[in-house]
Amino acid sequence: MTDTVLSLAEELIRRPSVTPEDEGCQALLIERLGALGFTCETLAEGGVVNLWARRGNDGPLVVFAGHTDVVPTGPREHWNTDPFVPTIVDGRLYGRGAADMKSSIAAFVVAAEEFIAHNPDHRGSIGLLITSDEEGPAVHGTVKVCEQLVARGEKLDYCIVGEPTSTAQLGDTIKNGRRGSLSGRLVVKGIQGHVAYPEKARNPIHQAAPVLAEMAAAEWDRGNEYFPPTTFQISNFHSGTGASNVVPGEAVVDFNFRFSTASTVDTLKSRVQEILDRHGLEYALSWSLSGLPFLTPRGTLCSALGEAIAAEMGIEAELSTTGGTSDGRFIARICPQVVEFGPVNATIHQVNEHIAVDSLVPLKNIYRRTLHALLSLPPAP
Amino acid sequence: MTDTVLSLAEELIRRPSVTPEDEGCQALLIERLGALGFTCETLAEGGVVNLWARRGNDGPLVVFAGHTDVVPTGPREHWNTDPFVPTIVDGRLYGRGAADMKSSIAAFVVAAEEFIAHNPDHRGSIGLLITSDEEGPAVHGTVKVCEQLVARGEKLDYCIVGEPTSTAQLGDTIKNGRRGSLSGRLVVKGIQGHVAYPEKARNPIHQAAPVLAEMAAAEWDRGNEYFPPTTFQISNFHSGTGASNVVPGEAVVDFNFRFSTASTVDTLKSRVQEILDRHGLEYALSWSLSGLPFLTPRGTLCSALGEAIAAEMGIEAELSTTGGTSDGRFIARICPQVVEFGPVNATIHQVNEHIAVDSLVPLKNIYRRTLHALLSLPPAP
Ligand SMILES: [Zn+2]
Ligand SMILES: [Zn+2]
Repeated sequence: MTDTVLSLAEELIRRPSVTPEDEGCQALLIERLGALGFTCETLAEGGVVNLWARRGNDGPLVVFAGHTDVVPTGPREHWNTDPFVPTIVDGRLYGRGAADMKSSIAAFVVAAEEFIAHNPDHRGSIGLLITSDEEGPAVHGTVKVCEQLVARGEKLDYCIVGEPTSTAQLGDTIKNGRRGSLSGRLVVKGIQGHVAYPEKARNPIHQAAPVLAEMAAAEWDRGNEYFPPTTFQISNFHSGTGASNVVPGEAVVDFNFRFSTASTVDTLKSRVQEILDRHGLEYALSWSLSGLPFLTPRGTLCSALGEAIAAEMGIEAELSTTGGTSDGRFIARICPQVVEFGPVNATIHQVNEHIAVDSLVPLKNIYRRTLHALLSLPPAP
Repeated sequence: MTDTVLSLAEELIRRPSVTPEDEGCQALLIERLGALGFTCETLAEGGVVNLWARRGNDGPLVVFAGHTDVVPTGPREHWNTDPFVPTIVDGRLYGRGAADMKSSIAAFVVAAEEFIAHNPDHRGSIGLLITSDEEGPAVHGTVKVCEQLVARGEKLDYCIVGEPTSTAQLGDTIKNGRRGSLSGRLVVKGIQGHVAYPEKARNPIHQAAPVLAEMAAAEWDRGNEYFPPTTFQISNFHSGTGASNVVPGEAVVDFNFRFSTASTVDTLKSRVQEILDRHGLEYALSWSLSGLPFLTPRGTLCSALGEAIAAEMGIEAELSTTGGTSDGRFIARICPQVVEFGPVNATIHQVNEHIAVDSLVPLKNIYRRTLHALLSLPPAP
């Protein structure tokens, strides 16, 4: 069965499912999962295709979550192969989605097949939550499915999101949480004037500089056991008419917090306002929350996955909460234990995206071992 | 003769001499000055018409400097009158150039006529240096005439630039100098990255903020008897790709010093560099010097003009060095005493520019009294 994961990954890569297109990826999954006894539902919303599949009626419910959509190819001429023709060169499978995250989906489907073959009457349930809108606005995808699952009272217990979390080698990193993301737009209001008459103007750049210096140097929190400290970054600062003799009337500053569970949205907002007010700025400030942080502390799921990795790869996975936001933030609202685990992410979102062919079977085995740990019947007494 | 200044000012306003056009203004002056015994030369250069007129061969040489060009009208629909049809309403003469500075030129020509009528054999010489490129790039105007005068060995002793220096009433302000203007463009070099991975990026906005805060708060000098302290203003700050999740790779900052004679170009440059280097910035810095400061301390010219104002208006003029740069900075290179004096500047460069009609004769008288003080023959012993 060595090449089953590879074959399914290739089949998925062959479908050019750039967000929000699915191009039949989910139909392929439904075919395979239906044969295994999964009940499959397509939840289409706003041009996005979502799949919810479940096998079993009881708890615990172990869910594999992922996305069939991929980011655009980027400049085709920089690809050595056709990004939608899966191609193996020197032991690597090339193609858009090879690492993010069609191989994970293929590995999970085959893992479920193998697990069910040996444990047809497993306890609990297995679920798959697949969207075609993870790489895009993420408005009609996982978040909508989660709302529906809550509405119908489905209770998730464990969820593995198949994002490519490994860095140097398969199994080195599990994401057991993600930082939150909070953005702000600050408009500092000055008084426009002529540089030769600064006493008649109020320079918003001069007013913003010490404030931004203070914010850039601030310690927002010290993180905690699982999270690095909250970071603050200014992404845009624009002020000035272009003329060299005009004091501008306002400055527009965009900034973003990636925040740990050691801070809250409210503490960050109030500290920013305190700084602005203390400096006596006249300003307008608007906020946009892209994602709350989530955290799955060490426990059943982390242990099961960590032990599966140790058994398969002979290494101890590190728990990490760094990096960008993911759909895990939505699932964490309805599922007490959510982690992310998948292949090496070195080439994701780049040209010549690829995955080591010899990591496909170990990836599948890790998922299968985890299912086994969580859902196999207890050995006969 | 009450209306002679008014008539000539009206004749000049009627000519729509928007920079660099002269539209026959200087021909009109040549006609009047030629009749008085001036030798008139037109020095045309790069589309700009300049006039150098001199009466007399000996020193001291007293020069009146000015410009026949005017700034554009701005939106015509905001003018209550045609900007190129001189119109008197409620005792005010309306038209583009009424205050800046066709009335000054008219006043000076009539002052010279009256002075010469009574002092046909005055000592020294009277000169007029008129350009049509003061309001524009100022590249082919006064600066070029000054170069030619130096080349032929003409020695200027006193110069009155007829810019509108008065603020509340005619005679309240003489500019006996101007600050210098030094501009810089600072490019702070960072390392572009993703806001979720700030440890892999170096945010140039974060790096610039404390530096700019220090520069905005710095005391560059304390000015001196004649100058207010040097001022620093940032006119433009641009950084950021527009995306809210990208740490930009560089920040571009434009700034300007208006500097007194208490600082020099070199001291300002080296202090800026010291600050940048002390903060460990990686940067590129380019400088552009628009004008050196000039200063005419109290002395013969300031006294003659101040006494003329006192006699005519009954007020004591204040010496000032504030405001923007002017052509005085070029003349100061070749003339030891340069001041600027003219009518109220409240409406210059605006729509509905105007001058009080009843200030025209006093303005002319002030110029005439100054000529008298500097060039009339000593009374018979
Ligand atoms: Zn992904
Ligand atoms: Zn002017």
